[in-house]
Amino acid sequence: MGSCVLIQNNKITILGIDPGYGRVGFGVIRLTGNKYNHVAHGVIETSKKEKLSYRLNEIYDSLNEIIDTYSPEELAIEQLFFFRNVTTALAVSEARGVIQLASFRKGLSIFEYTPFQIKLAITGNGRAEKGQMQRVLKVFLGLQATPKPDDAADALAAAICHANSRSSLKR
Amino acid sequence: MGSCVLIQNNKITILGIDPGYGRVGFGVIRLTGNKYNHVAHGVIETSKKEKLSYRLNEIYDSLNEIIDTYSPEELAIEQLFFFRNVTTALAVSEARGVIQLASFRKGLSIFEYTPFQIKLAITGNGRAEKGQMQRVLKVFLGLQATPKPDDAADALAAAICHANSRSSLKR
Repeated sequence: MGSCVLIQNNKITILGIDPGYGRVGFGVIRLTGNKYNHVAHGVIETSKKEKLSYRLNEIYDSLNEIIDTYSPEELAIEQLFFFRNVTTALAVSEARGVIQLASFRKGLSIFEYTPFQIKLAITGNGRAEKGQMQRVLKVFLGLQATPKPDDAADALAAAICHANSRSSLKR
Repeated sequence: MGSCVLIQNNKITILGIDPGYGRVGFGVIRLTGNKYNHVAHGVIETSKKEKLSYRLNEIYDSLNEIIDTYSPEELAIEQLFFFRNVTTALAVSEARGVIQLASFRKGLSIFEYTPFQIKLAITGNGRAEKGQMQRVLKVFLGLQATPKPDDAADALAAAICHANSRSSLKR
């Protein structure tokens, strides 16, 4: 559980998640050997006027749909590390709990990375700006345009960070 | 959703929860008019050696069993307010997310109270000590002994705090 498993056909689908309770970014990539393919990216948006428990349930349902659609084997989720507002961080953690629950119940292995680790993996600079991150993602994934919105781009970045980290683990 | 509903037969079952990821205290009381009855209390303990996602799933499964057994209509859950360790608070929040998700999906209305509100409701002193809290709980609920362990006692206290608060809301 949780360790890197060598997939027989050398293909693996990774779901990256940028957690939040208002918006959850997701990005799906497929790794074949050392080659990345972009599969999908987007954002789960929750109902602003509803209570947090209702919104947590929206995240749970939407994430289950995403997992059913793309069948990822591994989850790469951004860790909360530095944050300005503790109340917001606690609410984001509640969403992170629900995201991990959904992923665990669908059999995904779960890996966590700090924002610093993710930026470092993509640009070689742990303090890179969003613009630079998104330009690199565009090239890495052969996209026509930089991935938008920011939450989805961050989720793709988490997925690629994990892909790099699991390749180096295997070596 | 979430507001106090007048139950036809004037009976309601309340589930109190003291959240955590290592131990989740639960307490169930039945309120008939202004009379409390103790139904059950205890602790969900999770597997220390497992990853957090595994433990979140244990909490989710156990809580679903508790809800199925006692059929509470309302959840009273302790809010994180003051805490010494931010990392622990974030992990407890992940558990709180899962607890709220399970409760929401089983149709419970969810109410949150701070430790101060709970102590105030039970003893008239928001800074009461654990020992005093547990002695009052014993009398309130007509128990043979003070409820143990602490997590379960805190959960019963949250349930009683909510019972008082919903009675005063109705007046």
